[in-house]
Amino acid sequence: MKPIKIGLIGLGNAGSQLARALHRKHLGLHAVFTRDEQKASSIGRRMRIFYTHDLSAIPKGLDLYILAVSDSAITEVAAQLAKVIGDANVVHISGAASSKTLAPFFKSYGVFYPLQTLTKGRKIKFKEIPICIEANNEPLKSMLLDLARGLSEKVYFINDEERAWLHVTAVMVNNFTNHLYSLAEKITNDKDLSFDLLRPLILETASKVQKMDPKDAQTGPAARGDQKTIEAHMEKLEQYPDILKVYEVLTKSLEK
Amino acid sequence: MKPIKIGLIGLGNAGSQLARALHRKHLGLHAVFTRDEQKASSIGRRMRIFYTHDLSAIPKGLDLYILAVSDSAITEVAAQLAKVIGDANVVHISGAASSKTLAPFFKSYGVFYPLQTLTKGRKIKFKEIPICIEANNEPLKSMLLDLARGLSEKVYFINDEERAWLHVTAVMVNNFTNHLYSLAEKITNDKDLSFDLLRPLILETASKVQKMDPKDAQTGPAARGDQKTIEAHMEKLEQYPDILKVYEVLTKSLEK
Repeated sequence: MKPIKIGLIGLGNAGSQLARALHRKHLGLHAVFTRDEQKASSIGRRMRIFYTHDLSAIPKGLDLYILAVSDSAITEVAAQLAKVIGDANVVHISGAASSKTLAPFFKSYGVFYPLQTLTKGRKIKFKEIPICIEANNEPLKSMLLDLARGLSEKVYFINDEERAWLHVTAVMVNNFTNHLYSLAEKITNDKDLSFDLLRPLILETASKVQKMDPKDAQTGPAARGDQKTIEAHMEKLEQYPDILKVYEVLTKSLEK
Repeated sequence: MKPIKIGLIGLGNAGSQLARALHRKHLGLHAVFTRDEQKASSIGRRMRIFYTHDLSAIPKGLDLYILAVSDSAITEVAAQLAKVIGDANVVHISGAASSKTLAPFFKSYGVFYPLQTLTKGRKIKFKEIPICIEANNEPLKSMLLDLARGLSEKVYFINDEERAWLHVTAVMVNNFTNHLYSLAEKITNDKDLSFDLLRPLILETASKVQKMDPKDAQTGPAARGDQKTIEAHMEKLEQYPDILKVYEVLTKSLEK
């Protein structure tokens, strides 16, 4: 892989995980920006790279700029950045935003989307994270491919439409399942039961579908049409109207 | 632990996993019954223990009988078993059924509930599975405690009411999350995307809450009030009315 110089804009959860991975694998992280002055200097010094909390100071002429900012900030930050760096290769890392968000500001743009929940501080094996890439031109596509392969064993070309669908499903298997964990924890807390009782079940449920098809892994009262148990559960859940609603809809969906 | 002799009734998913664990840890598995003649002989021979596919042939006078049959069969099998063995220590392994289900048939009864999704053939570390025990008398309670500790590091005294709540929450974090995986897979299949793209996210979502509180792990558009993304998702999901319903209810519940 030809060595490139990368500027990373944003050091939130995803940004800081990406910075760490790029740095550790010597993939050309050259400059970082975050508005938080202290964070900028702490990360920049540790990695011995250029850092700034002033976007207008970000170096021009780098090979690639990665916007790791929240979806709602992409347009604004891209506009500011364009004034500083002029035309350049720019990508964002969002699952939800179209690559076209960048089109008004740069001729060469794309997406570099690591499909994972990236939490600051958590140790993540980047090489197992699927990276979805897209670009509006071949040279950038090939640059992103090299970069993604340097980070992960799982690289996919995914266009805007496909990525939008992936993002919906990611919300389902991540945000919604985590919310089910939360609702369950609300109940265990209320009933003076330890949430630890459920942790091995949670992990095994996710582990099972690493190889199996989720359909083949499905068990439980709704899957086997056990109305007696479903009714008993719903009666208990009357004291949790919100959870009862969730229970009803998922049970109905399961019974289909 | 005083050596005991155990009769195991039923070799379905949970029963056969339990048989394997009891056998491997030399915890006194003495006889197994399943209606399936071939399965009875295959497991009985492999473990070199008494086996039968005729419930009336199950040996009398064992220290403990474990009913590993489906919830709906407990009463019927208990009634038949009582005719054969007379009075004895009998437990079932169900999360949903009350221990009292056994009261009409035996003086000494209880529950031995491994809180895990037990799939035949899958290798499971029994020592990490929480085992919830309950008995209507102290000697049986103490016998179940010894037995559970022989299998697992996580043993809990859980009464009928508590176990009923646990079962509701188990359905939520296991059956419902798995169903969300299935719905996501339906979409990825339809859109010619590989479900492998979501597998690392699924595993990380479950891994995160092994130490964290699920509330602290919550991310996503609904948690941050990102209406634009939610609306975009709902527009896409119009072609999946059933999934849209699930999406709406979980998003509403998350926003609370």
